[in-house]
Amino acid sequence: MQENEVITDRDNVLFEAGIKLGALYHQFTGSPVNLDTVDSLEKGIQESISVQPCVEKISVSINRDMISSKLNGKYGYCELEGRMLDVHITAIFKTAKVDVSLAFDTELDYPLMKIEKIY
Amino acid sequence: MQENEVITDRDNVLFEAGIKLGALYHQFTGSPVNLDTVDSLEKGIQESISVQPCVEKISVSINRDMISSKLNGKYGYCELEGRMLDVHITAIFKTAKVDVSLAFDTELDYPLMKIEKIY
Amino acid sequence: MQENEVITDRDNVLFEAGIKLGALYHQFTGSPVNLDTVDSLEKGIQESISVQPCVEKISVSINRDMISSKLNGKYGYCELEGRMLDVHITAIFKTAKVDVSLAFDTELDYPLMKIEKIY
Amino acid sequence: MQENEVITDRDNVLFEAGIKLGALYHQFTGSPVNLDTVDSLEKGIQESISVQPCVEKISVSINRDMISSKLNGKYGYCELEGRMLDVHITAIFKTAKVDVSLAFDTELDYPLMKIEKIY
Repeated sequence: MQENEVITDRDNVLFEAGIKLGALYHQFTGSPVNLDTVDSLEKGIQESISVQPCVEKISVSINRDMISSKLNGKYGYCELEGRMLDVHITAIFKTAKVDVSLAFDTELDYPLMKIEKIY
Repeated sequence: MQENEVITDRDNVLFEAGIKLGALYHQFTGSPVNLDTVDSLEKGIQESISVQPCVEKISVSINRDMISSKLNGKYGYCELEGRMLDVHITAIFKTAKVDVSLAFDTELDYPLMKIEKIY
Repeated sequence: MQENEVITDRDNVLFEAGIKLGALYHQFTGSPVNLDTVDSLEKGIQESISVQPCVEKISVSINRDMISSKLNGKYGYCELEGRMLDVHITAIFKTAKVDVSLAFDTELDYPLMKIEKIY
Repeated sequence: MQENEVITDRDNVLFEAGIKLGALYHQFTGSPVNLDTVDSLEKGIQESISVQPCVEKISVSINRDMISSKLNGKYGYCELEGRMLDVHITAIFKTAKVDVSLAFDTELDYPLMKIEKIY
């Protein structure tokens, strides 16, 4: 019988980093936003996710150009979409540390979550 | 046969006010929060919902005491719950204007949405 | 001084109907979906919102054509968007009853919430 | 200077598995539910997350006892909370495969996400 693999700090930090990105995305996409309020939404999201376990550093930036192009003349706002988000998180778990990101991939036409660096 | 009722501005403003409270509640409850980040979450929520149609004024306040009592020693954060929210919205639709609120009702043990005033 | 208006059952039922639509929209948009799973998402949403106060009847239908056109070859799923939703709710509050809807308005290019009928 | 670590399939599968759990949790907690509708909510959640990349298998179970104990006599429903969820996901990424879970940890009083097995 094959042994179960030992779970390392590296395994855990990558798992935790994934949780943060999935949480951020599905908690906050759909939020109403326009160019006057994008600053406070960015800050609200960034600080909210920063309190979760294993988050050492987080930056959240929302693409203003995409908001502009979505603004409906009649209504003057749009919804936060995953493709508008540019997020960088540094996560730590005991001895392990990683950088992960969420950014719109124009080739794939998809808001891609990616492991950027394992320290 | 009974005629369908004419839909008035008053009808519409109450419908719109309800939409805002339902949206706010289900968009943002679940957000991670602690006492260091509650300010930016409040502001982010308030400004986000302010851009929606018919919102003339909105104030969002999150109960710090409830956050404190929920804080888990090990993790140092909790999730935003509906009962923590105190929200006041003034909505307008053409000639009609109303105040509505979301506040925790201790007797009902329920985060109650209510029409406060019809102008 | 002008008296505050008396709040009627009709006022309350419209407020409650709005809450339901706002809640549904912001709770469930963003959910991953494809043509194989759209049935269970529809049913899950419909039954979830049906348990809320004042909901007498609710039907939720998700536009399959919009899902098809969004499906990304590489990933095979998309996210539920507000524009995909067609929702009809009959709400009651004591003596008052209304029909409201959420449906994509092609002219406005906007997922419109509307009062359909006041009984 | 230390080289950046090579990113392995094992790293990616753990990252992906974390994303799924974070997404599920923050998409669906807050959904109205009672004992009559819990079946369709479970199925809706399970099928929704099943369409995301790298999900080989997923089971979602919602704790009926916790729902019962939360039911408010007056309102007859409650909201889906993280602690009610018991989720098992098997994720695959190329050569790598893992089992992860979300389950309420009574000792920590916390809905814990955990790596269960690395194949």
